[in-house]
Amino acid sequence: MEVGFIGVGRMGLPIARNLLAAGHSLIVYNRTRSRAELLRDNGALIAGSVAEAAGAEIVMTLLADDHALEEVALGTDFLSRLKRGAIHVSMSTISVALSRQLTEAHAKAESVFVSAVVFGRPTAAEARQLLVVAAGPPDAAERCRPLFTAIGSRTEVIGSDPPAANAFKLAGNFLIAAAMESLGEAFALLRKSGLDPARFLEIMTGTLFAAPVYKIYGKLIAEEQFSPAGFAVPLGLKDVRLVLAAADAASVPMPVANVVRDHLLTAQARGRQELDWSSLAKVVAENAGL
Amino acid sequence: MEVGFIGVGRMGLPIARNLLAAGHSLIVYNRTRSRAELLRDNGALIAGSVAEAAGAEIVMTLLADDHALEEVALGTDFLSRLKRGAIHVSMSTISVALSRQLTEAHAKAESVFVSAVVFGRPTAAEARQLLVVAAGPPDAAERCRPLFTAIGSRTEVIGSDPPAANAFKLAGNFLIAAAMESLGEAFALLRKSGLDPARFLEIMTGTLFAAPVYKIYGKLIAEEQFSPAGFAVPLGLKDVRLVLAAADAASVPMPVANVVRDHLLTAQARGRQELDWSSLAKVVAENAGL
Amino acid sequence: MEVGFIGVGRMGLPIARNLLAAGHSLIVYNRTRSRAELLRDNGALIAGSVAEAAGAEIVMTLLADDHALEEVALGTDFLSRLKRGAIHVSMSTISVALSRQLTEAHAKAESVFVSAVVFGRPTAAEARQLLVVAAGPPDAAERCRPLFTAIGSRTEVIGSDPPAANAFKLAGNFLIAAAMESLGEAFALLRKSGLDPARFLEIMTGTLFAAPVYKIYGKLIAEEQFSPAGFAVPLGLKDVRLVLAAADAASVPMPVANVVRDHLLTAQARGRQELDWSSLAKVVAENAGL
Amino acid sequence: MEVGFIGVGRMGLPIARNLLAAGHSLIVYNRTRSRAELLRDNGALIAGSVAEAAGAEIVMTLLADDHALEEVALGTDFLSRLKRGAIHVSMSTISVALSRQLTEAHAKAESVFVSAVVFGRPTAAEARQLLVVAAGPPDAAERCRPLFTAIGSRTEVIGSDPPAANAFKLAGNFLIAAAMESLGEAFALLRKSGLDPARFLEIMTGTLFAAPVYKIYGKLIAEEQFSPAGFAVPLGLKDVRLVLAAADAASVPMPVANVVRDHLLTAQARGRQELDWSSLAKVVAENAGL
Repeated sequence: MEVGFIGVGRMGLPIARNLLAAGHSLIVYNRTRSRAELLRDNGALIAGSVAEAAGAEIVMTLLADDHALEEVALGTDFLSRLKRGAIHVSMSTISVALSRQLTEAHAKAESVFVSAVVFGRPTAAEARQLLVVAAGPPDAAERCRPLFTAIGSRTEVIGSDPPAANAFKLAGNFLIAAAMESLGEAFALLRKSGLDPARFLEIMTGTLFAAPVYKIYGKLIAEEQFSPAGFAVPLGLKDVRLVLAAADAASVPMPVANVVRDHLLTAQARGRQELDWSSLAKVVAENAGL
Repeated sequence: MEVGFIGVGRMGLPIARNLLAAGHSLIVYNRTRSRAELLRDNGALIAGSVAEAAGAEIVMTLLADDHALEEVALGTDFLSRLKRGAIHVSMSTISVALSRQLTEAHAKAESVFVSAVVFGRPTAAEARQLLVVAAGPPDAAERCRPLFTAIGSRTEVIGSDPPAANAFKLAGNFLIAAAMESLGEAFALLRKSGLDPARFLEIMTGTLFAAPVYKIYGKLIAEEQFSPAGFAVPLGLKDVRLVLAAADAASVPMPVANVVRDHLLTAQARGRQELDWSSLAKVVAENAGL
Repeated sequence: MEVGFIGVGRMGLPIARNLLAAGHSLIVYNRTRSRAELLRDNGALIAGSVAEAAGAEIVMTLLADDHALEEVALGTDFLSRLKRGAIHVSMSTISVALSRQLTEAHAKAESVFVSAVVFGRPTAAEARQLLVVAAGPPDAAERCRPLFTAIGSRTEVIGSDPPAANAFKLAGNFLIAAAMESLGEAFALLRKSGLDPARFLEIMTGTLFAAPVYKIYGKLIAEEQFSPAGFAVPLGLKDVRLVLAAADAASVPMPVANVVRDHLLTAQARGRQELDWSSLAKVVAENAGL
Repeated sequence: MEVGFIGVGRMGLPIARNLLAAGHSLIVYNRTRSRAELLRDNGALIAGSVAEAAGAEIVMTLLADDHALEEVALGTDFLSRLKRGAIHVSMSTISVALSRQLTEAHAKAESVFVSAVVFGRPTAAEARQLLVVAAGPPDAAERCRPLFTAIGSRTEVIGSDPPAANAFKLAGNFLIAAAMESLGEAFALLRKSGLDPARFLEIMTGTLFAAPVYKIYGKLIAEEQFSPAGFAVPLGLKDVRLVLAAADAASVPMPVANVVRDHLLTAQARGRQELDWSSLAKVVAENAGL
């Protein structure tokens, strides 16, 4: 398929490469053009403007946050440049509120909005191991499926209302953060009781907690391997803020999300912007005098 | 082996049956004798007193809490009735402090203390699917291994100091409770955002959270199936109290454990002693107006 | 003095009346004109537009929230209608961020921005018992002093940077909310222990806690008198959100603010928009099964 | 009156001195006899044993904690040495549970138990500025009133059931701790927003928060004057534990008490046993990177 592709960041780059490898044609735009140029050897065309990339039948955006996506999708001629019936697939972790706003803006512009969030760190993106969770008009979601198949190991279409995918993503990221926090607390207790967290982790992830999240983050936390960051503290904080904003809008108290936010705030206050968000467990350990 | 067996509760009954089925000889004591009698058909001898059961080479206790174990092990002639070199295997979820006290009392009495905690609900006990985590003098732990093999699917000996097994168990139970709390919060957010928690759970436990704890408790919580209880609110509360007591003794703040405790306290204050401890998620939902 | 006055709400009305009673000339604008008309008998002129009220030397705004103030001050010709050197006195509880933005916008427009927040409920406003905390250029703050004196019992100028007054106000409101939450928790403990919170309150506020906040809110909470609202749940929630937004921007974890926010969210989720924000203590009591 | 006096600690010493100064006869026992000897010049008799002090008509105990009081009152011949109808006045901050136990033990021993807790730091004790809150049989409480008058500025008898005074004391200490925590959070926000907490404190305690607790602890916290300790971290922690134990027994979630406990645990984990309990605000500041 012909795909406009906007946003070549840490996730965007491997995703674009996998789309190209699967035979799709990409016209790529990135604000810092040199990042887009990295894809030229993989066969991508490089767009000089948002408008140029917006001319394709399907346009994917992989931008850093609400602000960046808002700027591109609502602050440029993006919407007016889309062909009638063209599909905008947003893959960013954004607020439910912005997703709602974009759904409405596309309806007015007679284009189609699909929200397709991804779970997985950059290494998973490279390995085509992402989980893609999409929501949008069924026809449009189906038309995009080959793209999702090219970048991930599993695709789930969960409904026709795009913001559902964003709420899903936020709930999922919260679950990950909560697991990290819990591991941090359990490990602090074990360490101060003279036990080895690694042994605990090995047994738990061999049985009751035999899940990728516990294995991957548990190892990072047990070994205190917070650098280089797969997903840095400010990004983690951004996501937890989105979780809490969605919870606030829906009048849902989420006390564990508060705990996670506070520990990430402390990480940030201590200048750990470069560490992985799993370093919230380092704050937990420090609070125990470790 | 000849095994004294004290405590025929919801976990004790299936565990004793599996020991008998594996060919071990049991002399069983239970305060309410009729519970012990349930094992007569399986070939157990019934003891009329703690002292009688304490005469075996290995004596297992499966009592409800610190209080019950303290009463039997320190408040009767239990210790003095043990043969020199006999092994007391405590399988209860008790405090690290009592485990330490028993370790010392056995050292004085020239008997051996092994702490062997189990993970798994009564149905897992019936199915010989328990995870046994033991700590104690290596020789003694090895001698007990056939017993552990008879009742569970996996045995791990994590060290020579018995209280280590209790700290391990508390950290593990905390991790389970924290997962339930997190699921409860995520589901509340999803439900109030118009999404189906069951679908979310299915996708998450098919990928990042593909672990028994998330599958089992996630299903209970998504379906609000809190009765009959596999592990009731007061028992959950007891365990979280032990976690917080161990954390306090080790100067470890555990904010997520606080959240869990508070939600179980509310469950109790609302008269839900009969519900499963996963019903803490019901409190989370109620706090969101659900 | 000649004063433009924009925003005749629950606080604006008594404040305007006191300004008029002190001999100041007011030209009043309110979106719903009938509210402004209430002041005609007190001698106010009624403005037909924001622009009309903005022609005075000093223009006071008393608007509901960030959104309302932003709309008036940045979304109309307000700034361009101000005379060079005119003073805009904002008395609303708004975000530190908007206060910063207005400071900069006024600097560009060659007008002067003073942030002057008030502590006190509507009854205190009527009785000229407000505490006014102002920040802005010293000359401008001094020029406004007669106005502050006319509406409150105490005026404090805390600095030259307007957003300081907003941070001060948010910290102060947090302290009030935290006191209510604490009283709620203490009362729940006392009630469930068979003690009378009113007696406790009487003794405490006669000694260690002999302060208006404890007396006023303590009485409301002990008597569960949450209606009519002096300051309703949604307004309380708005303020706590501003506190947490300021804390987030400054990387400051505020766990007690989280607790307050969560209890107000539950109040809102239970449909208590009409109750006073002190009804967060009702949620605390309910969590204890009361 | 003739008073047996057991426990000459930081509070006991000035209290005993004030009793002696008011003309009462004291026979004083302290485990470390040299502490008791400090009172000889003030006219006290020195007892060689608990039993000796227990012979008076009224026996006051001012012991450090549950353990110390339990040891004296239940672990010695204390009860049997009391004359029939003698009054035991316990002034320690102890658990509601132990107070209940002592009430029952005294009933059996045909002696009378009065629980009379005190609010105030050692300096307040020296200055006869304590608040005494007593509960016990009305006759007995009245008989003790001259003693209370000799040591404090205000006496309140709140009921006939002794444990009520202990629950009152715990609720009161919680309120103090919560105020310190709240001040700590507000100050952290102000400091990181470039404001001076001292100025904020001055204005707030001159108006809405014009109460001794806010003035005294606010000053300690604003000036970070945590040493020498009026009431050290381990004592604060002990009291918060008692609050949470009483709350747990009554099924009352107290999330702010959890926050306080966690911050005191961190203070302790960082080796600050010598600092005042108001140093929990130091932990709050550190969490904000200050």
